[in-house]
Amino acid sequence: MLNNKIQSQIIKKKSFLCVGLDIDINKIPKSLLTFDDPIFEFAKQIIDSTNEYAIAYKPNIAFFEAHGLQGYKSLEKISKYLNSSFPEIFTIADAKRGDIGNTSQMYANAFLKDLDFDSITVSPYMGSDSVEPFLSFKNKYVFLLALTSNKGSEDFQELTMNNSTKLFETVIKKSRKWKNSDRIMYVVGAKNTEEIGKIRTIVPDSYLLVPGIGAQGGNLEEICKYGLDKDFKLIVNSSRSIIYASDTPDFARMARNEAKKIQMEMEKYLNKI
Amino acid sequence: MLNNKIQSQIIKKKSFLCVGLDIDINKIPKSLLTFDDPIFEFAKQIIDSTNEYAIAYKPNIAFFEAHGLQGYKSLEKISKYLNSSFPEIFTIADAKRGDIGNTSQMYANAFLKDLDFDSITVSPYMGSDSVEPFLSFKNKYVFLLALTSNKGSEDFQELTMNNSTKLFETVIKKSRKWKNSDRIMYVVGAKNTEEIGKIRTIVPDSYLLVPGIGAQGGNLEEICKYGLDKDFKLIVNSSRSIIYASDTPDFARMARNEAKKIQMEMEKYLNKI
Repeated sequence: MLNNKIQSQIIKKKSFLCVGLDIDINKIPKSLLTFDDPIFEFAKQIIDSTNEYAIAYKPNIAFFEAHGLQGYKSLEKISKYLNSSFPEIFTIADAKRGDIGNTSQMYANAFLKDLDFDSITVSPYMGSDSVEPFLSFKNKYVFLLALTSNKGSEDFQELTMNNSTKLFETVIKKSRKWKNSDRIMYVVGAKNTEEIGKIRTIVPDSYLLVPGIGAQGGNLEEICKYGLDKDFKLIVNSSRSIIYASDTPDFARMARNEAKKIQMEMEKYLNKI
Repeated sequence: MLNNKIQSQIIKKKSFLCVGLDIDINKIPKSLLTFDDPIFEFAKQIIDSTNEYAIAYKPNIAFFEAHGLQGYKSLEKISKYLNSSFPEIFTIADAKRGDIGNTSQMYANAFLKDLDFDSITVSPYMGSDSVEPFLSFKNKYVFLLALTSNKGSEDFQELTMNNSTKLFETVIKKSRKWKNSDRIMYVVGAKNTEEIGKIRTIVPDSYLLVPGIGAQGGNLEEICKYGLDKDFKLIVNSSRSIIYASDTPDFARMARNEAKKIQMEMEKYLNKI
């Protein structure tokens, strides 16, 4: 399943960079704190300065929920800003939701309809009927957590089942049979890049979202070796190394430089295909 | 680990009923729609009319997020109302969150500190470091999803691992070794009550939260047979059958009757111990 919006951006920008908006009020430049909504202002300047190199933006919902009402307002403004100024760029609500059917439907409405994100990250633990409500919207997508990049991924995701496959492989395989499974993409951590190769063989036609180059330590060359293919169905996220490249008033230009640096490396790998 | 707040309420009210606040604006009595905040007004009247029989309230966060800013305001008011008018009653934010460490910390601050809930439901899929931030608050608790009550629980939770235990058992066993694990309680669905007995033997000292008597079909007698013990470490949730007992202006009295009916049945089982 190829997503035109994602693929055309990858081809146009020679980049598969997603910029993660994990915006921590304590880490943004002090010079922004005089604005009415410093978080939105920071996001806007980051988006304005990096959109030439980014094909997707991924607000991390927790960072907004942590500010209650004000956080919700900032999130809403960011989503509107992206949809109005950069409708060609793909948006991901990094929310990691998942609940029984009627409850998942509420979350799906909130993020995919009202906030109008293109996609949302979803946890698979509660199974098919907890994910399917998120798959019921045309042109909207789910990034299903498969193998995450944190240490705790070893606790359950990497355990072996009695049919000799690991839990994360089982999650991916089973999810292919769910209703509207062509709208599922997968979150795949970069801790062990060989696993990305294994996942690529299970879902040759699905987009993979790899979090964590930069601060989370992933190695782009290795990720591309195993995850990149002729249709470029790969999105690699970087958050902290770009958005916190500097905490001076010059932060936006520094973020742009950092994004450009990653884009140039990505272009190199894309050219090899 | 006994929780004094929960246990003293169980003893006082002869009840282990949690009322789930899954408040759907389309299902509440039309007579409330003239209020400024119909959702808060509904919740308040439900709480006022059922608190004699309920030891805990569990707002389902999705139903609030579905209303954006207004939903957040309603949720905040409900939490404040519970904490100020009924501080002895336990509160559960049914949010099913879980993310990498720094992100889980943001969610934990939002629900356990700012909104000041006593506890939150958390998904285990991302492992120890995704749950531990929620366990870092004194007198605050996590309900870890173990075995849920929906059909999709069969997809992964009930799969057998290569050490012959099921995934949900593995989740429970591993979680006992996490930091501050005495603050973990477990969500255990009532679809197969014998499983509740199995879980009780794994964690004899932990509270179990069983969702879904009433609309989700759980059988209270069976749940008590396997889940209730001498220290009453059991909380059974009912949402729809109580809060939507009627959609007439008389809904609060009807909800009270329904809560009372469940409490009386619970008292019968408590007396047998």
